[in-house]
Amino acid sequence: MNYRQESLKKHAEWRGKIETKVRVPVDSREALSLAYTPGVAEPCLAIRDNPELSFTLTRRWNTVPVKTDGTAVLGLGDIGPEAGMPVMEGKCALFKAYGGVDAYPLCIKSKDVDEIVETIKLISGSFGGINLEDISAPRCFEIESRLKKELDIPVFHDDQHGTAIVMAAALINAAKVVNKEVSSLRLVINGAGAAGIAIAKYLLKLGVADIVMCDRFGTIYRGAQGMNAAQTEMAQITNARNLAGSLADAMKGADVFIGVSAPNCVSKDMVRSMAKGAIVFSCANPVPEISREDALEAGAAVVGTGSSEKPNQINNVLVFPGLFRGALDVRARDINFDMMLAASHGIAACVGDRLSPDYILPYAYDLETHKAVAKSVAEAAIRSGVARQGK
Amino acid sequence: MNYRQESLKKHAEWRGKIETKVRVPVDSREALSLAYTPGVAEPCLAIRDNPELSFTLTRRWNTVPVKTDGTAVLGLGDIGPEAGMPVMEGKCALFKAYGGVDAYPLCIKSKDVDEIVETIKLISGSFGGINLEDISAPRCFEIESRLKKELDIPVFHDDQHGTAIVMAAALINAAKVVNKEVSSLRLVINGAGAAGIAIAKYLLKLGVADIVMCDRFGTIYRGAQGMNAAQTEMAQITNARNLAGSLADAMKGADVFIGVSAPNCVSKDMVRSMAKGAIVFSCANPVPEISREDALEAGAAVVGTGSSEKPNQINNVLVFPGLFRGALDVRARDINFDMMLAASHGIAACVGDRLSPDYILPYAYDLETHKAVAKSVAEAAIRSGVARQGK
Repeated sequence: MNYRQESLKKHAEWRGKIETKVRVPVDSREALSLAYTPGVAEPCLAIRDNPELSFTLTRRWNTVPVKTDGTAVLGLGDIGPEAGMPVMEGKCALFKAYGGVDAYPLCIKSKDVDEIVETIKLISGSFGGINLEDISAPRCFEIESRLKKELDIPVFHDDQHGTAIVMAAALINAAKVVNKEVSSLRLVINGAGAAGIAIAKYLLKLGVADIVMCDRFGTIYRGAQGMNAAQTEMAQITNARNLAGSLADAMKGADVFIGVSAPNCVSKDMVRSMAKGAIVFSCANPVPEISREDALEAGAAVVGTGSSEKPNQINNVLVFPGLFRGALDVRARDINFDMMLAASHGIAACVGDRLSPDYILPYAYDLETHKAVAKSVAEAAIRSGVARQGK
Repeated sequence: MNYRQESLKKHAEWRGKIETKVRVPVDSREALSLAYTPGVAEPCLAIRDNPELSFTLTRRWNTVPVKTDGTAVLGLGDIGPEAGMPVMEGKCALFKAYGGVDAYPLCIKSKDVDEIVETIKLISGSFGGINLEDISAPRCFEIESRLKKELDIPVFHDDQHGTAIVMAAALINAAKVVNKEVSSLRLVINGAGAAGIAIAKYLLKLGVADIVMCDRFGTIYRGAQGMNAAQTEMAQITNARNLAGSLADAMKGADVFIGVSAPNCVSKDMVRSMAKGAIVFSCANPVPEISREDALEAGAAVVGTGSSEKPNQINNVLVFPGLFRGALDVRARDINFDMMLAASHGIAACVGDRLSPDYILPYAYDLETHKAVAKSVAEAAIRSGVARQGK
């Protein structure tokens, strides 16, 4: 099937992938008096006296906006806020279907960090958490870190951390398939934007020591020209051998290639140059760095892509519904590394005995996976002291 | 029943009056490929090339935020943004149940006009229209007029115009009951905030010539001290006799009292001083200016209040679901006076033969009324040239 043409037709038929559902009766005078005026004055006054009650007397406890400025949507780049809406709506549908989270799509017509931070802060009282989406680097780093500091509800930039969490889950299981230790892997990450940098930082914390990052100009190394602040930081903490060269140079002898970059930038020869039992996660969307078929032909042992049409789809849809479900369930004030790590291990564990080169991750639509992730995350939130409620 | 205590209990049980509903299948790999990646790239690109398509390829065509800063919630005053949420959620439930409109509650943590205008502008690309709610005067006038100028989707401040529209509908029918002409009525409005001023302006356009407005200090007249800009304007266009005095003075001989002010500020004697066949709309919420029982005892011929527990509830819930339904159905770029007038007449007409002193307005939960309002409003939008689609 040509999913893209068919999807366009479907979107025109659907005219929206989510809608509002009413949870209370409003079909009589008495019902209106309870759900609306005059009765509603009482919960209003209760919240005035104790704003915390907004989490029990309204839907706030379960509500998350999916926010974008439209600057880094899928692999399509800066397509504008309105054009990001089909993706945001899709995420909202998945938030609800897989995690029971009530999510609203919100696009922001601004690329200014201060304006975006201010806008989100001003409306944060309506929500139990904030999901940032498809905001380009390096702005997304500052937006997220400022919001995390200033708000006391969880703030999560999915393109960074969702991607890192699912990539780690995939890596944990792929390493088992090829009988290697995660900590001893030689790893190349192509793409030094939001996702690539978040993956590198996350895998460093996970114990992967040998990581070389590349952008379109080659490796990120100490002394390279034209790097932004985030890349300069990455040059300090990755690339221990300080390898200066091309992506092809970096891939020679590597155990793992992780691509979150651009279509068709990896050749079969580059995969052939990798170590035996090579793992190739080629996740550019919608067209990967190298196709699954080409990577397998070139000798890769395990191949994952971003596509739902192929085995081993590496997509953060495995993460965000359960992660937020777990965080909201215990009123976590943050989503910290412990919770993210719990999500990675929770996802990896769901594969169980079925582990094989073509099955390193559970299917995105497997509800049991999302439930397991939610449980692990909630427990990690309690253990790490950011839960307001022990469940 | 003590609705307020019972309502508090119910709100704690409900934990939210609305939720998100998923409208598309996401339970298989193929379904995900259409609703999400890779398929979703195609509608994104279509909207990038023509942002107008956000109205057909996403839910934008049917989506309205109910926005407040929490400064004028019900009759409770400035209770803070979070505390306004039970009312906003209630309105969202009614938007959907009565008008089929997908509404989201959004509270804004700011009282600054520029910040509120900017925040709403920045997120307006997510919505088909904007419903402003419970924002105090005089800030609400500037916020609404600036947004109306700068956005090309309908912007509507419900506390002003919703109240005016339903009040006019009530007045049209009450005048029939007492056999008087609307245009010849002598009318007193108590409350010179957002609602009172909007009602006065609206009724002037409707042809009511003799209107005296009062605030807590007495009549609004040319030369009075301490008036804000909006009240100074009202002194120019109302109170033709330039009556200076108390509310009691203004009510002597009046045909109609409209209260959008404070509890218990009208006495039986004041109602007794009105003309024969007096109409009393005592709409302060949750406690009216004078109770229905007292007003009837003092000789009023028709009494309306804001309460759903009494006959003749005058509440803008009769307006906003059908009004937005009609505006969204024809992609109106504005909600203008013609559309509002169509709503007033549409509501009044729904009473039909059942008109009596205790039945001047249809019940809020009568779905046929909302449908009729939507139809009248859509037709008026087409006639007045603000509809983008003729339906």
